[in-house]
Formats: sequence, structure tokens, C-alpha cells
Amino acid sequence: MTHPTVSHIRIDQDRLWSSLQDLGELGAYDDGETGLRGVRRLALTDEDIQGRQLVLGWMENAGLTIRIDQMGNIYARRAGGSDSLPPVMMGSHIDSVGTAGKFDGCLGVLGGLEVIRTLNENDVVTLRPLELAIFTEEEGVRFGTDMLGSAVAAGRLLLEQALEIQDRDGTSVRTELERHGLIGDVQVPITPPYAYLECHIEQGPILAAATRQIGVVQGIQAITWKELHITGRAAHAGATPQTLRRNAGLAAAMITVQLNEMVESGRYGQMLATVGRHDSYPNLINIVPAKVLMTVDMRNPDGDSMRLMESHLDRYLAEVERATGVSIASRTTAKTPPVAFPIRMRELVAKTATNLGFSYMEITSGAGHDAGEIASISPAGMVFIPGLYDGISHNPREYSTPEACADGINVLLQAVVELANHPAVSLEAHTSGSALVL
Amino acid sequence: MTHPTVSHIRIDQDRLWSSLQDLGELGAYDDGETGLRGVRRLALTDEDIQGRQLVLGWMENAGLTIRIDQMGNIYARRAGGSDSLPPVMMGSHIDSVGTAGKFDGCLGVLGGLEVIRTLNENDVVTLRPLELAIFTEEEGVRFGTDMLGSAVAAGRLLLEQALEIQDRDGTSVRTELERHGLIGDVQVPITPPYAYLECHIEQGPILAAATRQIGVVQGIQAITWKELHITGRAAHAGATPQTLRRNAGLAAAMITVQLNEMVESGRYGQMLATVGRHDSYPNLINIVPAKVLMTVDMRNPDGDSMRLMESHLDRYLAEVERATGVSIASRTTAKTPPVAFPIRMRELVAKTATNLGFSYMEITSGAGHDAGEIASISPAGMVFIPGLYDGISHNPREYSTPEACADGINVLLQAVVELANHPAVSLEAHTSGSALVL
Repeated sequence: MTHPTVSHIRIDQDRLWSSLQDLGELGAYDDGETGLRGVRRLALTDEDIQGRQLVLGWMENAGLTIRIDQMGNIYARRAGGSDSLPPVMMGSHIDSVGTAGKFDGCLGVLGGLEVIRTLNENDVVTLRPLELAIFTEEEGVRFGTDMLGSAVAAGRLLLEQALEIQDRDGTSVRTELERHGLIGDVQVPITPPYAYLECHIEQGPILAAATRQIGVVQGIQAITWKELHITGRAAHAGATPQTLRRNAGLAAAMITVQLNEMVESGRYGQMLATVGRHDSYPNLINIVPAKVLMTVDMRNPDGDSMRLMESHLDRYLAEVERATGVSIASRTTAKTPPVAFPIRMRELVAKTATNLGFSYMEITSGAGHDAGEIASISPAGMVFIPGLYDGISHNPREYSTPEACADGINVLLQAVVELANHPAVSLEAHTSGSALVL
Repeated sequence: MTHPTVSHIRIDQDRLWSSLQDLGELGAYDDGETGLRGVRRLALTDEDIQGRQLVLGWMENAGLTIRIDQMGNIYARRAGGSDSLPPVMMGSHIDSVGTAGKFDGCLGVLGGLEVIRTLNENDVVTLRPLELAIFTEEEGVRFGTDMLGSAVAAGRLLLEQALEIQDRDGTSVRTELERHGLIGDVQVPITPPYAYLECHIEQGPILAAATRQIGVVQGIQAITWKELHITGRAAHAGATPQTLRRNAGLAAAMITVQLNEMVESGRYGQMLATVGRHDSYPNLINIVPAKVLMTVDMRNPDGDSMRLMESHLDRYLAEVERATGVSIASRTTAKTPPVAFPIRMRELVAKTATNLGFSYMEITSGAGHDAGEIASISPAGMVFIPGLYDGISHNPREYSTPEACADGINVLLQAVVELANHPAVSLEAHTSGSALVL
């Protein structure tokens, strides 16, 4: 069996852009901060389901076969010439944070769809089947664990545990999946695909500052999420001397400032730390806070540095307990190790970018991605494109140009077709242990 | 006209206690923090109105004439022998914070009622009329300004401004007063009473630690409340380098820690500072906070030190803006000067305590009180009683014994009757400018 060359084929930039705009209308809201139209499509909400239905309709029109796994992850399949071979998978997510733009995740899903539409129009049949995945709750802002769907698909998290996770209102993942009829029959962990490739906006300032069109992603930094439950004692703000206070708000502030000092000290390399959530109780002007629930998001491309950061934080929490008289319960809600994508996947992306005439650079991802989860079961890689405004993301100002989006998806198209035309026999010949085979 | 001596008369401890318990049932809730039954009767809510109706019924049964002013403050009047003389006023408030006990404010109101019931039973007619006041929104937790009702009654705040103040949901004081039919016909500022005396729990640890039964209140510390609106920029927690962040949450934490350092430095005398409220937006784990609304409650018995504290805070806010790139809008929502009660009112309370065989000490109030407002138009004083558990207040653990409550109200009874029997002619003879006349 031979396969036609696709090096002359390009995706339809306008159609890709139009699909991004259409999906961005679902869950849209007027953002008071920016004066822009933002997107709020939290995982498994009605808005998210509207988004899925729109994309599922497009997938069916493109002739894809839809399957859903036990975590609500969607797999849309395009048959291959040798359809029993493991597929090449593209994918990402369409759930969003509460104050999102139109690109994060959606570019990977709609870009994959555009790849398939383009192959359909050009009558290209690949040797291996293609699959396009939409993973459930990548952002983690609703249920508190990011990459939740892909982590279950890849087997890092257990299905039964994931289904029991509740949002702030006490609604579980299981309840929401059942409500929307999204508990499918594909078993998790899934059968590993032959390879996985995901295109995504950078969500940072590096590519734009270096004026590169494509980012070849080396890997993803380690992420640790913690929830700190600080318990002090409510007391009258005017009549309780400082020495008799157990001030949960002061403890939270000390931890927030300490995390910033850890970053600025440079002791932990490329560490980032963010206290994104802070809920105070009873939250009244003249009462010493009795309780604070705060979250800590820590990132580091180096696993050893991450471990040292976590130890530092644990020691400091004990110090705050001694200094303020509060008690602190610390719970790790997410923890992913650093991911290094296989060198051959990176080489494939770099070679493809060069063939298409794009400038590129190697880059480490600051954000977690579904590709980081699938990397544990299959050779995986990522294609980044630059964003405007310092690459701002998780904000309605998030923006990449139509041209930049098309560049990334053209790289995805060429690279995926090359992977999908790898013959089975050649695959075996190159296999060496658990390393990438290409 | 002669007036019988009342030195042998004592109030009914059980009846006083029972009225405190009954009022404490309105707005009661199960407090998860303490496992106790707490009280949540925020000003002008339905629960507050239920409380007013209960007490109004008791007032009417005690033969009092009810009047209401334009701010919803209630005045229940007992006729005097010379009923055209200015009255002696007792009073306090029955609105509560969100996590309250049964004593704060209620002791002053129900204690005043118990004084009147006791005088009724003993057929004591005082020369001057007595008035018992319930002031609106003393706590300030709903509408953001404490002593709101008494400040309008005393003329420190303008009625029209007070009526327009809104709660967090945008409901105004005027709307709530109208809804409950509480805009009365007594003009504000009110005609000054002859004198004002208020009994209150200490809300601090001092009397209990010194094992004194009665606190003779010297004055009330200055209070300044500020609302800080911090505006930064939402950004991705994993992909935004520290240098590109405008982190509103970090700014809030720095201010909270700085206020604590100001207290601990000792530079501002008996300063207290509390950040009671902290609302973060968008309040999601992996997004740098774009906005924080925080409150600052500052107290100091010394007015000069308070001014220096405020300057220090203003300078520090500018420093935080420079260091973090956020912008901070600061709004003063309440500001009361320190109050010194007239020496003769303090002497009256001290003498009365001695006559009744109680140990006492002079003490400065850490909390603001309606007496501090009325002090600007009439000679005013306060009687404190000790509380258990370090005098904890604004918490369901707040507790004073039935005996301690009765002690305070017996002092109130004797002192009020002495004031109310002061003849008009004697009053004029002792007048000297705006100083206390006794």
C-alpha cells in the first residue's frame, strides 16, 4: 500500500478561525475587567455540553465515528488504510477557566478537526486511523484537579476516585457525567495510541519575544496543587489584643508572601507559585478571620527543585502555626511530575516546521496539558504557537492571530500524516524498550 | 416633690437572663466552628425585625411609649414626675454580627428594660422621664458603617447620606427601613437627653484577668475602617513569569502582613489592626488574582497615634503599588475619634459600684459603642461587665454569667435613678459650657 504525499496540502485558515469564533460564543460573557467578551465554559456545565454538542456535530459531518469513555472523554475516529493498527491521536480540551479566551484547548481540538476536514477534501487516506480526542476537565477549576479526564484515560488516576470528586457545591463528576449522558462504554485506561500530538497556544511571552512562529515543546513543568485549610478563632477586632488572636487571615497572608519570597530568592530555579483562591470566614470587617481556605499552585520544570519547594512550604506552615496559633491542614489536590517529550517527537515537529518554512525554537511548557498525561502511555509531543500581549491566557485578552493558528495546525497536519503513514513493520524494527519508536 | 430612695431595690436576675435567652433564639443558627448555637441577626434583616418586635412587645407591656426616628432608632419612654424635663436615656443595640453570641448590645437594651420593669414593680417614679433606645446597625457589618443609627441620631452623620448606604447586594438602608415601616417621625439629630448610660459586656479579657466585677469605662478608642480595592491583572499561573504579574492577591497579603508588623513594632502605642474581609476575583486555583476587595479595621485609644498609623498605611499602599504593579483605591468607610467620657459620669458609676459592694476598675473600651456617639450631645457613660474565655465576643462562645449580667444592671439601675432625680434647678447651677452637668 502506498500513500500520497501531502506536503503541498494546507489547511483552510478561514474555516479554522471561524470554528474558533463559533465555539467561543458558547459560554460567552461580558467581562467587566477587560471590557471584552470572555468565555466561561467550566467542565461539565451546561455551557461545556453546548460546546461539545457543537463540535460533535462538526465531527459527524466530517464522517468521524464517535466513542466516549467512562470519564466522558470523546474520541472521534477517522478510518485508516490498515484500520486495525493503533491510531495516531490528536486532541486537547474545550472546557475553560472562569475568565477565558477562545483559544486555550479549543485550538487543539478544532485544529485536529481542521486537519481531518483537509484530509477529507484532498481524499488522503492514511495508513493508520486518526483519532481526535476531547478530554474532560483539563482546567481543573471546577473539580480541583487539572488534566482530570486525560489522567484517567492514561491510568494515572483511578476512575472510581475521579468520579467521586466534588465541586464547591458538592456536585460530583459522576453526577454531572450521568446528567449529561456522558458515561460511555470505552474502558479506561484506554488502549495506547501509536502516538499523540497536540497543538496549543503558548500561554506565555517567550515565542513572541523571540519572534518565532512555532514552539517545539521539550516538556511540561511539574505541577503541585495544594489546598490549605487554616483554622484560627473568630474574635472582636477592637477588643482582642494581638497576643490573644489566632488570626487565620494573617496566617494566609504570611504564606502568600513567603511563596513570593521563595520565587524571588531564585533558590528553586524556574519556580512559579500562585495563591489563586482565598476564601475567608466569617469575612466581616470587624471580626478576626476564623478560617481561610486558600490554594497554592506551584510549578517547576525540575522535579528535584519541586520537591525542595514542597519541603520548604511544609516547614513554613509549621512555623506559621507556631507564630500565629492557627492550625493548618494541607491537602495535595493535584501533582504531576515534569514531563519530557521523546526526542524523536520533538525532532519530527522541528523538521516539519522547517519544511514549511517556519522559524521555531525549543520551549518548556509552563502550563499542564493533556499531552503530558498521554505521554505516559504513548510517544507524545506538542506544537506551540505564539500569543499577543505577553501571551496572556486565562483572560479574555488571550489572542493569537489567524495566521499563527494556521501555522500551528499546518505543522500538526504534516506531522500527523507522517506518523500515521508509519508502517507497522517499521515500527517494530525501531522499538527499543519503552523509548519512543519513530 | 420628693423621690423615694431605691438603694434597697435589686433587679430580677432570672427575668433578665430569661429575656437574653429568648431574644437569642431569633436569628439563631448552628455554628459549625464551635458546635454551639450562635446568633446571626444583621441589621434590618428579617431576623433583626423579629428581634425588634419581641422587644417592642415587652416595652409595651412595661407601659412604655414607643417612638421611632427617621433612622429607625427606637425610643421607649417612661414618664417622669416632671415629664417635660429632658430624659435620662439608656440604650444599646440588638443587631448582631454574622457569628454572634447573645450578649453584645442585647444586655444594654434588655438590661434597660429590666431597670424599668423593676421601677414599675416598686412604684418608683423618677423626676425626669427615662428613655430606652435601640439603635439601628451598631455593628456595621451589613452596611459597612458601625454605630450608624446613633451617629445619625447624634448628628455626626447626615441622614440623607446614611439612607443611601448599600449592603453588598446593593440594597440601601432606606429601602430596608421602608420595607419594614421603620422611618419614624422623630427628627434627627434628636433633642439631647439629660444624660446617657449604657451597660455592655467588655468584649475583652481585662476585667476577668483582674477579677473585677464592674468596669468603669474611661472612653472608647478611635476607630478607622477602610475598604481597599486592589486591581491587578488575571493571568495564567503556570505560564506567566513573576516579573509580568500584577498580583492583587500578593498585594493584599503584603498589606495584611505589614499591618501586623505595625502592631508588633509598638510604634503606635495600643494600636490594633484587622483585615476581616478578603474577597478575591476570579478566585480560581490556577489564575493570578485580578482583583481583591479587603477591609482594614484600625483602632487606637490615642488620636495622634491613629493619624500616624493612617499615614503609615497610605505610604505603604503606594509602596505596594510600585512593587507589584497593582493599583489600589482606598476608601474610608468609618472614622470615629477617641471618646473620653466625662469624669463625673465615671465617678457616678464608680461610686454606685462601691455602694453595691462590687469591685471595679477603670478601663478603655476596645470596641465602638452607641454611647460614644451620644457622648457628643449629652454626658454619657458606660458600665462594663466581664466575660468568660478571654472575653471572646463576635463569636457564639461569647458568655457572661447571669450574676455578672445582674451586677451590671443593678449598677445601671442605681446610677440611672440618681441621674433621673437630679432637679432641673440644680442642673442649671452646675452647668459650665459643654462640660458634664451632674
